[in-house]
Amino acid sequence: MGVNELTQAGWQVDPESGWLVENQTVGFQVRWRLQRLLHHERSPYQDIVVAELEGFGRALFLDRILQVAELDEFIYHEMLVHVPLASLPRARRVLIIGGGDGGTLREVSRWPEVEAIDMVELDEAVVRVCRQWLPQVGGTAWSDPRLQIHYADGFAFLQKAEPGRYDAILVDCSDPGTPADTLYGETFYRLAYRALAEGGLLVQQALSPFIHREALTTITGRLATVFPDSGVYYCPSIAYLIGLQAFVWGARGTDPGAGPVRGAPQGTRWYTPEVHRAAFVTPPALAALRPASAG
Amino acid sequence: MGVNELTQAGWQVDPESGWLVENQTVGFQVRWRLQRLLHHERSPYQDIVVAELEGFGRALFLDRILQVAELDEFIYHEMLVHVPLASLPRARRVLIIGGGDGGTLREVSRWPEVEAIDMVELDEAVVRVCRQWLPQVGGTAWSDPRLQIHYADGFAFLQKAEPGRYDAILVDCSDPGTPADTLYGETFYRLAYRALAEGGLLVQQALSPFIHREALTTITGRLATVFPDSGVYYCPSIAYLIGLQAFVWGARGTDPGAGPVRGAPQGTRWYTPEVHRAAFVTPPALAALRPASAG
Repeated sequence: MGVNELTQAGWQVDPESGWLVENQTVGFQVRWRLQRLLHHERSPYQDIVVAELEGFGRALFLDRILQVAELDEFIYHEMLVHVPLASLPRARRVLIIGGGDGGTLREVSRWPEVEAIDMVELDEAVVRVCRQWLPQVGGTAWSDPRLQIHYADGFAFLQKAEPGRYDAILVDCSDPGTPADTLYGETFYRLAYRALAEGGLLVQQALSPFIHREALTTITGRLATVFPDSGVYYCPSIAYLIGLQAFVWGARGTDPGAGPVRGAPQGTRWYTPEVHRAAFVTPPALAALRPASAG
Repeated sequence: MGVNELTQAGWQVDPESGWLVENQTVGFQVRWRLQRLLHHERSPYQDIVVAELEGFGRALFLDRILQVAELDEFIYHEMLVHVPLASLPRARRVLIIGGGDGGTLREVSRWPEVEAIDMVELDEAVVRVCRQWLPQVGGTAWSDPRLQIHYADGFAFLQKAEPGRYDAILVDCSDPGTPADTLYGETFYRLAYRALAEGGLLVQQALSPFIHREALTTITGRLATVFPDSGVYYCPSIAYLIGLQAFVWGARGTDPGAGPVRGAPQGTRWYTPEVHRAAFVTPPALAALRPASAG
């Protein structure tokens, strides 16, 4: 397995240095220093690479776009999970859509009160590859007895989901324009609304307010038409090179930004109740991205 | 003026695309999409480029490293300036070391109470180039009657400075390993301490807690040996591609993290008192970077 195989699979690789080219970004091109290529395969859905990167640790790439890096994945996963779960009075049933690397599962798994974790991942190969090559991301959570993995499309899963079943729906998916595109549509948000219990919360990763401002504005607009309360919060993003990661939320009666916050579960490295509160502080330059209540 | 001139000046330029290569970063290489090269010259100190970049606006490069981009420079400059100034009961005399682009000056200039602004910039050419090619960064602050520009080395300037003269010293310089290297030494911090009034505050940009963790640890250690109170705060960084920008502070009796905060001056786009407070919230993963009081 080597650079030739990646080139044949559509990767652009610097022939001298062997650096991997990532072309997702606007205005600049990133070349990752590949210290070691650990795994490469093509699933029915996407090109999957796990590599060791200088300074960033092991990283997962889907269709030549970095998804997870050891250096900072805990920030993203803790903020995606604990902000909604600590805002709910109690989270009994949690649905993860996407999240095949296991990081979101790991964080949900920290909550003893959770009784059932449904994880809907389109691509079985992502789970298999991450369990083998990124074992520290999912850790022991993969054998959590509360977990049920469904290899299915998140949109189709929600079409059949029991109304009011989930206290939290966590959408840990790739960006619009990828196989996850339908997970950012208004119809998807209506399905999620229906599947949420009273007081339930949807949270979804939603790109960056600087690099992808228009896409984020579109997403917040759609959410605001479906949910009585919705908004945005942020965390730093290192390996995505976007500076700020946005998460959008939609709620049936719970306000994660202004309501009470329970303590953090054991073992977090980024999340605390103070970090939670700080994530909702909105500078003037981002105020326009905070949707007004559609009440 | 074109790509050939840049290549002759030591830039690595992709011959097909004309993208500028920045090699500063660890683990990855960045290539900026040059929409228009606006200015290039070599000063006695460094290679200076101003270019229009896709998505990031106009940008200044010194020795092939991006220093300022229109997209997000206001975050950095507002957080460097208003955190200390709003923490002081009153700021009468402010010293800016570096800051040749004018952004720090612009923010200091928003405070009517400030009576004197000394700006010490090593390289006259940076000021001249930025006034011409990045006029919106410094704006009208360049003609602020309170401003006195000294073209000198910041270290040498402080050796001769009147003890106790400044309420705030703002060090807006490039990274260690550049011509600004001496501005991160313990001797420099001793000179700054001497030049500060009782209650005065030093703030300095100090790289990133993820990408440059060791350098930041060294810097906070040096500050803690000189100042009775010191610490770190953060803001998002987009164009530097480091995710989080760290600022270090050293104080003679003022605590910018826990003391009272005055309101923001007119016209800020990022800074508010709430943003100020949030910048000091320290997640567990960064707690080790917060130096204990050296008493």
